[in-house]
Order: sequence, then structure tokens, then C-alpha cells
Amino acid sequence: MLKLYGFAVSNYFNMVRLALLEKELPFEIVNVLGRQDESFKSLSPRGKVPCLVTEQGSMSETSVILEYIEETQGGRPLLPADPFQRAQVRALMREIELYIELPARACYPEVFFGGKVDPAIRQKARDELFAGIDALKRHGRFAPYVAGDQFSLADLYFLYSVDLAVVVAAKAFDTDVLADWPQARALFELLKANPHVQKIEEDKQQEMAAFLAKVRGK
Amino acid sequence: MLKLYGFAVSNYFNMVRLALLEKELPFEIVNVLGRQDESFKSLSPRGKVPCLVTEQGSMSETSVILEYIEETQGGRPLLPADPFQRAQVRALMREIELYIELPARACYPEVFFGGKVDPAIRQKARDELFAGIDALKRHGRFAPYVAGDQFSLADLYFLYSVDLAVVVAAKAFDTDVLADWPQARALFELLKANPHVQKIEEDKQQEMAAFLAKVRGK
Repeated sequence: MLKLYGFAVSNYFNMVRLALLEKELPFEIVNVLGRQDESFKSLSPRGKVPCLVTEQGSMSETSVILEYIEETQGGRPLLPADPFQRAQVRALMREIELYIELPARACYPEVFFGGKVDPAIRQKARDELFAGIDALKRHGRFAPYVAGDQFSLADLYFLYSVDLAVVVAAKAFDTDVLADWPQARALFELLKANPHVQKIEEDKQQEMAAFLAKVRGK
Repeated sequence: MLKLYGFAVSNYFNMVRLALLEKELPFEIVNVLGRQDESFKSLSPRGKVPCLVTEQGSMSETSVILEYIEETQGGRPLLPADPFQRAQVRALMREIELYIELPARACYPEVFFGGKVDPAIRQKARDELFAGIDALKRHGRFAPYVAGDQFSLADLYFLYSVDLAVVVAAKAFDTDVLADWPQARALFELLKANPHVQKIEEDKQQEMAAFLAKVRGK
């Protein structure tokens, strides 16, 4: 059976978990934080979660795991059959990861973990984050899902990256990203009504206090 | 016919161009820098190159374009047929992009463009870059290609991202990345003997002076 390594507070872990749940596939969770020891890096070369262990071996990187599940495990498709439409979904995944998730993540130490972020890093993150949100407003279809009328891999990135970016924009940059973006607000509401999303959120809230204590204690 | 937008100094543009050349596919180049005007962002939402214009419309993000070409255009395959092996190639592409290209890129203003990089950004880039190189040493097979005995999409990332990261490590961090990495040195030599790679390099050198003048003049 597929083994998914990660922890309930990790947004990337939750993307893969939601894909597996939506596809109604059997899998086992191995609860682990990302780690830099040799043993874990033999599964995930950069020491990050999620990683997926299959009968053939392990793989890491969320988008790679999602493509592998799509290609091999059956269940409800989360990529369109048409290659051009599939490319649009993949581009939206990538645009959210590179231009929204990554700059927002540079601000996590300040926004979530009680630390400080250097002003230069903060400024760079700010510029990139707002350019990334602009790109998603431009490219996303929100009809009602990110890439059109079907729930797809792009919605996983939207749900678990853009939600954190919204908090970062509010707390670090005093900006309500959703104020003039009703389509995104509506999609969050739609996704949060999904029972699998609710289960993932419950588990996340349950682990949150212990996780924050660990990170802030570092 | 496929139209590839970009310019000869762009390393991501060169990845796609090399894939098309290796597959012996017909395509047309539209010479353009990344731009933030509305007209270009209607083709590439974040205003970046490369972007690929097909009969169905445009798409951006190098990895997305490469997958689309792989799925639709025929020619020499650059991804393995086995899904697990394909996942390894994709993971290597992603690891090079996220953990080597991106931190190295944060130092480009200082290393290539005669500017300055804030010390905090520099330090963050340094830590990430060396961790990324460690991950590639661990995961790459170099037998002799990055993912094994076949030239693959991962080699495009290796050739056009790691080469610049090597320069960044030398100039910004006084470190010879290749000194204790003979497999990487050997692979660079092998790839640089490829006539398509040589043609791309010639075009790059020809555009370089004008490009640097433009960027430094900003």
C-alpha cells in the first residue's frame, strides 16, 4: 500500500492527502516532520515532506507525487484528458507554487512562528507575492474551480497555498487579498464544504499547538 | 507550427529550445524578453519567458511546456516510459529548479549584473544553494546522465541551471562546487559536446553583450 510521509500541519502534505482521499485510494500515513538526517534524506533527498513510498521505492516533491498518483492509481481524474487543458492546470499549479507559496513562505517565520524576517527579504517577498496573486487572477478561471468546471490538482494548490498567502498578506502587508476577489472567496467556501477538506482541517488543528510549540522553541 | 517565445540568454528558454532540437521538431522562435505589459501577460500570466504558443493557445512555465511537448509532439522521448522512473526524472527537475536555480538566481544581480544583493538574502541563498547541491549529489545518478543512462528532461535543468549555480557559488561564495564532483564535471563535458548545445551556446554568446548592457542599464 502507498505510504505517505508527512504531518497534518504541512500544507504540501495536505495537498497529496486530499488527492488520495478524493480518489478514494487506500494509503497509510507515516507521521513525520521533514528532517535533515541521512536516513530520511535517503527517502527524500532535500529532507522535506511529503514523500511517498511505493513498492518500487520513494519519491518526493508534491507535484511529482501528484502526477505519479494520477498516472498509476486510478480513481477520479484530477487532470483533464486534453493535453492543452492539462498544461493549463499544471501551469496554474506551478504559478501558485513559485509565485505565491514561495514568497509567502519567506514570511512564515514572522507571521506564524514568532520570529523576525529581514526587511530586504520581506520587501522581495511582498513584491513577488502581489505579482503572483495578479498572475493567478489573470490566469485562474474560477468557474467555479481554479482551472474551470472540474476540481483539479490546481485546486489543491489554491486551497493549501493561497489560504496561507492570504494570512501573510494580511498580517505582514496589511492587505486583504480577498476583498476584491469574490471568485476566490467563493471557491474557498466551496472547497471548505468538502468533508475530506474538513477532516484534514480537524487533524491540522489538533496538531497545530504542538507543532507551533516545537517550531517556536527552536 | 509551435512558436517558442524567449531570448537566447534565458536559461529556461534554452531548456525548451534544446528539447525541441533534440526531438527534431519544427518550431519558430519569437525573440522577446519577459515583459510586464498587458499584451504579453495575456500570453504568459507572470510575464515570463519561455512561453509556447500552440494552435490551441499559449502556455508558460518551462516544466509545463516540456511535459506538453513530450505528450503531444513525438520525437525522441525525454521522459522514461515507466511511471516510477518518470517520477524520479521529474523530482530531479523540481529539485534543481527549487533548491539550486532559485537560490542561485537570488544572487544574479550581484554575480552577473553589477548590482548588490542584501546580506540577508545572500545568506539565505547560500544555505539553500548548498543544501540543494547536496540533494542533487544524493539523488542524481550521473550514469552518465542525471537520471541514469538516458538523456532526459532532468539533463536540461542540470545543463542550464547548475552551470549558472556553479558560477554563483564561485563568485559569491568562493566555493568550487565541481572540485569534488567529478560526475557533474564529466556530464557537463558530455553535454557540451552536443552540436545542439553548441548552437544554443553560440547564440547565447552573441546576444550576451547587448543583454547585459540592457539589464545593467536599468
